[in-house]
Amino acid sequence: MFTTFSASASGDWRVTWQRTLRGAPLGKTPYLSVARRPYFFASAVAAPDNRWQLIGVPSNARYVQKDEKAQLVRVQAGLGRSEATCAALIPIRKSEAWWNLSQDERREIFEAKSRHIADCMKYLPAIARQLYHARDLGQPFDFLTWFEFAPEHSAQFDALVAQLRETEEWSFVEREVDIRLSAVTDAAE
Amino acid sequence: MFTTFSASASGDWRVTWQRTLRGAPLGKTPYLSVARRPYFFASAVAAPDNRWQLIGVPSNARYVQKDEKAQLVRVQAGLGRSEATCAALIPIRKSEAWWNLSQDERREIFEAKSRHIADCMKYLPAIARQLYHARDLGQPFDFLTWFEFAPEHSAQFDALVAQLRETEEWSFVEREVDIRLSAVTDAAE
Repeated sequence: MFTTFSASASGDWRVTWQRTLRGAPLGKTPYLSVARRPYFFASAVAAPDNRWQLIGVPSNARYVQKDEKAQLVRVQAGLGRSEATCAALIPIRKSEAWWNLSQDERREIFEAKSRHIADCMKYLPAIARQLYHARDLGQPFDFLTWFEFAPEHSAQFDALVAQLRETEEWSFVEREVDIRLSAVTDAAE
Repeated sequence: MFTTFSASASGDWRVTWQRTLRGAPLGKTPYLSVARRPYFFASAVAAPDNRWQLIGVPSNARYVQKDEKAQLVRVQAGLGRSEATCAALIPIRKSEAWWNLSQDERREIFEAKSRHIADCMKYLPAIARQLYHARDLGQPFDFLTWFEFAPEHSAQFDALVAQLRETEEWSFVEREVDIRLSAVTDAAE
């Protein structure tokens, strides 16, 4: 199943703020629609900025080792918790230099130097997370990461992304957009 | 760029034989067309067997380490050598059990136990090879591997695939088709 995130005039998630940290911006949108579909049309021709659509696919883990996986499974939370009314979509693209590294070099930077898994673990289960891979789909970003958390954990989420952005791994990130969202409920509309 | 391999009534490669080793067969075809396109339509709805199309994308290496990569770059040959008039397309799908393993468990089986990289290295540069990833594209196979070699290296190619099929890694392969091809030249038609 392919997950599509679409800039839209209405939807299940209202954009509370949107910021481009590196590289070309994504057009501003008031709402984000999220859909899962068994098909998609991949094209190198991008839609106009103000009605962009990003597509990703969940895939197998590329760096997590056996002991880390066991620990993650024990502590992580799933998506869709009723109290998790805050979300974030952070699409990133890494440089060619990153992708030309061998697996052991990437793992060394990812975990030994940047502690990506160990440091993110501290924020579980408060922050739920789902990674979607997009690079092999010919998409403008390599990864779309989706986070869900309760409003009282917003500061923790800010700390998590601030920490990641200071790692050596992040020096390979050449495009990054940060979109914060609030769940649209019947009561709120 | 997406590479598509299409069963066809004519094309640059004539099928010399085709065999399904595991899982559901692929319809027999007299020719194979190979095309590279910047877009594709991914669909869970399969075409009728006798006009199948398989799509893959070159991607970053998932297991190769720095020293192995340096060695590979030194000895491997590129596609399109004029003497390489024989080719093979081997689509495979691995089991859910494989994809649920962590990265270190997969590497252990792939190289420490199955010597996938070290043993294939012995056949370079005679056998040129390009791996296309297909799993994240929602395709019926996980990998499409394309090989090119001169007719006098056919026995070496047979030895290479026979060796791979006896590894522990191959116990995770649940679908495999082997298609052997001969380049169509003006003189031969």
